[in-house]
Amino acid sequence: MTNICHLDLQPIGKRVEVPEGTNLLDACQQAGVELVAICGGAGICGTCRIRLLKGKLTDFSMTEMEELTEAERAAGLRQACQVEILSDLVIEIPPESLSAPQRLSIEGRDADFEWDHSVIETREVEVAPAALTDLRPDTTRVLDALKEAGAPGKYRFDPEGVKALSGVLRGNDWRATLAIRSDEEIVAILPPGTPAFGLSVDIGTTKVAAYLVNLKSGETAAKTGAMNPQIAYGEDVISRIRYINDHPADGLKTLQGRVVETLNNLLEELGRDAKVKREQIVEAVVVGNTAMHHIFAGLPVKQLGDSPYMATVGEAMNVKARDLGLNLAAGGTVYLPPNIAGFVGADHVAALVGAGLHKVTDTVVALDIGTNTELSLYHNGRHWTCSCPSGPAFEGAHIEDGMRAAPGAVERVRVEGDEVQIHTIGNVDAVGICGSGVLDTIAECKKMGLLTPKGAFTGEHPRLRGSGVNAEFVLVPAARSKTGRDVRMTRKDVNEIQLAKGAVRAGAEALLDVAGIKAEEVQQVILAGAFGTYLDLDSAIGIGMLPRTERNRYQQIGNAAGTGARRMLVSREQRQIAETLARDVEFVELAKHPNFTKIYAQALLLS
Amino acid sequence: MTNICHLDLQPIGKRVEVPEGTNLLDACQQAGVELVAICGGAGICGTCRIRLLKGKLTDFSMTEMEELTEAERAAGLRQACQVEILSDLVIEIPPESLSAPQRLSIEGRDADFEWDHSVIETREVEVAPAALTDLRPDTTRVLDALKEAGAPGKYRFDPEGVKALSGVLRGNDWRATLAIRSDEEIVAILPPGTPAFGLSVDIGTTKVAAYLVNLKSGETAAKTGAMNPQIAYGEDVISRIRYINDHPADGLKTLQGRVVETLNNLLEELGRDAKVKREQIVEAVVVGNTAMHHIFAGLPVKQLGDSPYMATVGEAMNVKARDLGLNLAAGGTVYLPPNIAGFVGADHVAALVGAGLHKVTDTVVALDIGTNTELSLYHNGRHWTCSCPSGPAFEGAHIEDGMRAAPGAVERVRVEGDEVQIHTIGNVDAVGICGSGVLDTIAECKKMGLLTPKGAFTGEHPRLRGSGVNAEFVLVPAARSKTGRDVRMTRKDVNEIQLAKGAVRAGAEALLDVAGIKAEEVQQVILAGAFGTYLDLDSAIGIGMLPRTERNRYQQIGNAAGTGARRMLVSREQRQIAETLARDVEFVELAKHPNFTKIYAQALLLS
Repeated sequence: MTNICHLDLQPIGKRVEVPEGTNLLDACQQAGVELVAICGGAGICGTCRIRLLKGKLTDFSMTEMEELTEAERAAGLRQACQVEILSDLVIEIPPESLSAPQRLSIEGRDADFEWDHSVIETREVEVAPAALTDLRPDTTRVLDALKEAGAPGKYRFDPEGVKALSGVLRGNDWRATLAIRSDEEIVAILPPGTPAFGLSVDIGTTKVAAYLVNLKSGETAAKTGAMNPQIAYGEDVISRIRYINDHPADGLKTLQGRVVETLNNLLEELGRDAKVKREQIVEAVVVGNTAMHHIFAGLPVKQLGDSPYMATVGEAMNVKARDLGLNLAAGGTVYLPPNIAGFVGADHVAALVGAGLHKVTDTVVALDIGTNTELSLYHNGRHWTCSCPSGPAFEGAHIEDGMRAAPGAVERVRVEGDEVQIHTIGNVDAVGICGSGVLDTIAECKKMGLLTPKGAFTGEHPRLRGSGVNAEFVLVPAARSKTGRDVRMTRKDVNEIQLAKGAVRAGAEALLDVAGIKAEEVQQVILAGAFGTYLDLDSAIGIGMLPRTERNRYQQIGNAAGTGARRMLVSREQRQIAETLARDVEFVELAKHPNFTKIYAQALLLS
Repeated sequence: MTNICHLDLQPIGKRVEVPEGTNLLDACQQAGVELVAICGGAGICGTCRIRLLKGKLTDFSMTEMEELTEAERAAGLRQACQVEILSDLVIEIPPESLSAPQRLSIEGRDADFEWDHSVIETREVEVAPAALTDLRPDTTRVLDALKEAGAPGKYRFDPEGVKALSGVLRGNDWRATLAIRSDEEIVAILPPGTPAFGLSVDIGTTKVAAYLVNLKSGETAAKTGAMNPQIAYGEDVISRIRYINDHPADGLKTLQGRVVETLNNLLEELGRDAKVKREQIVEAVVVGNTAMHHIFAGLPVKQLGDSPYMATVGEAMNVKARDLGLNLAAGGTVYLPPNIAGFVGADHVAALVGAGLHKVTDTVVALDIGTNTELSLYHNGRHWTCSCPSGPAFEGAHIEDGMRAAPGAVERVRVEGDEVQIHTIGNVDAVGICGSGVLDTIAECKKMGLLTPKGAFTGEHPRLRGSGVNAEFVLVPAARSKTGRDVRMTRKDVNEIQLAKGAVRAGAEALLDVAGIKAEEVQQVILAGAFGTYLDLDSAIGIGMLPRTERNRYQQIGNAAGTGARRMLVSREQRQIAETLARDVEFVELAKHPNFTKIYAQALLLS
């Protein structure tokens, strides 16, 4: 008798079951996840490296002892071709070990944004050289020079940034470029003529996106992204908070450290790409949901995980990068926009800033759909917001053959009579199905009369098999899939999506109810975020996830949070907008809404 | 033939020569420096621990391998009874290994000081508990409560200090004590009713003194001191700067680390003594000369060591304790008063604040005598300052039988006819002679007609022996000294003191010249600092170190810098005074004074 082991391949989000003793490289291949393995499994190329997060593998092979350093082995690195599976596993596959590149981030639209001036201003100074007749300290020389030049502020030096002063002045004929923050703090002293840069980061629960921006021109000099490594400690926010609660001594530090390590790697990459030195990167804006924000800032999260799910910090924060371990310039600062509530964080604030909604006069609904969905309603000069737990189904989790939007994921489905047309990410053979693919499948089945409003399969179709709770719709038959198994959507999957889309719809309805208006009165519906952008609008409306209003009232604006973060990096006014918005918004707690149960029950239906 | 090894015992400043192969415990005893050695040299008590800073000893004995941890051995710790001397050595003797306690610090007078309010204010807050009907973030709750209570500021939270908020509120029925800095930054969140404390530190080149002060009452809760461990890297400022220049990779970090480590030990001791927790110590004031200031703050010192000896930072600094590695509360701040010039540092500013000189209308000269002597002249609403390199002779260095003011040092000398009366620190047998003892001896010899104005011995006395450059005056004959050798003052010693006292006197004369006044017009002469307090005024006047003005115009005010630091800890106004003073003072560069050579030549004479 052979035991069956459950294998969880992160950050792709693909699960597979294999017999105990299976070689790990083979198991990944069976799951349709192709690792780089240049030497074909001989163990000599080291390209199939993975990290063991949970579970048991065979001991280090002789080859691994040679190929991996002690530190790497201590960090859980293994060579997939060298090991056999001995238990249920959670495995992290680093991007460089995946043969197909990940789809990492999506651009946001950046229409009609006129940036005013960055919180960072650079100024060139030239001071009198040191002499027996002029023994003012270096700092006094610089402050006097600023005063003489009519600079507006009362300045102080960052105590770390100032360490460069003596060297820069003496090495450059007593001239320097000062990076001055908010007209008050001299955060960096650079050789004359050196431009200053900023970093904008969007820490998603799954993905991290980073941009390097020239703070004078506002231009993006380089961009990159990575998976959020915290995924190894829990796929969603709640399980990461649980991990931290379960590891009171170092859980928070571990998760904070992992994401900071990733950001530092991205910083290095950005600097290399744009030929920008660390000392030049003097400011950052980091956005994320409240949990990502708190973990990144090292703030306690226990109260975020227990009802009533409260944020520790609401207001915007200015934190020295060195306090976070982030490798900006020595005196660099990180701006964290405000959080509104435990589940409406700085990323939603940034998305609203990115969407430019502070000046709307229309009635607007803005949604940022994800594991947690944040909704805002602007109407008549007021602004309400709420959050609803839409769950991970949109990201392919809790879906039988689900996976994240990674290569091999079925993302588009059309059913025309007996024919089923699919499209996969990367145009490769299907590995599984991602959120937008499930949404399409449900909408298409419903259109074909194969689904009841309550989510039960009905009728007949060549791809529909089984019945009742065991019914399933086959998207890709085994013969044509990469895994050699059918890629299906089950009755359970339909119900998972119903719960998710029901939460979103109910949130929207509840906000409309609080404002006392009807869906028809909404003049714009703005969908932000990756899922909101990739989803097929007709499908989403077709299954009743979104209100059935005029199609042209919808806009899919991409990664608005990232756009907002970049705006706040280059513009003081945009930070002001974020802070005002967070102070003035009215938070609606759905659990307290008198009709919520009724609204939710209605929203669950596929209609 | 046996080699002779030079042994330098720090921080006492005693030197001795012994044959190669001498046991280190025996060598210390020969030098008159008694180590604790409870077991009598059997190696089992571990009380004679020393640290090897430079040179070669025999290998670790079996006993040492057992008694010392690997980390201790790596840090250079040895057991003196177990090792033999193989080369010239520099040895650091930790205070706990010395049988006689060190005289560590001296109190300053603290007359007529009315403290206004500290930069730290504590406020008790009580906020509404979390509920579904009130989901404001914790920070917002607190800020709202402050507003309701009519608190005056626009507050922000320190990003490290805020980490305690959620826990304190939930653990104390939603009540807390806030420590608020400058009406703007909430630096610590403590359980309700917890008092806040501050640390004041005077980092001398030789000694470090630390005080724990209750920030509400202004009372000193505990005090302590230690030797400055940087002494192992150079006795004076210049040699420490040289050490840092010679070790560009880590020299600054090493010296900064050593003094911070010492301060953290003192903090632990103070906290234990006063039953005060680290989280309660929210503010510190640290003073020192410009080099001590720069090294403590991690600022570059190269330009301080090269002409024209410039400070990097002049203005007062507010540095987060965590940036310095100082174990205050997580959000605690260190205030560093301003420096005036490369050799007139924050300690002189603090001394002037401590002496309360900002409001004098008299003509006043204030001197802080040390290896470097700082002088200030107040006259007619103006304030001049200068520094002069008085050298280490006052601290017993460069004196044949010299040592610091430690137990066994001859500190008072009276010559009555053929009789020589001496007094040693700690009333023990004489080990050597410290600065005030040399000063007394010269004054007494001069009074007896045994010294010419140029510093040559003349005449006859039972204790005077040799002639010309080899003449010396025996203070303690070998039979009565602890070392078994004569304790003497040589012709060379007299010249060393002439150079030192000449520099001080010349500095004073130059300031008077700049101000256009005569010594007789000076209404107060204020002597600050340990040496200025311990010296015999009549001796100092007698040898022409200080102007021969009325005796009652002199005041010896003790550690005014320490007093000033404590004032700045509990009073915002005193910080303002320091900053204004540093901005308004007129620095006089002696090297540029047209008559300085002439003034100095005159000042060298014993008259």
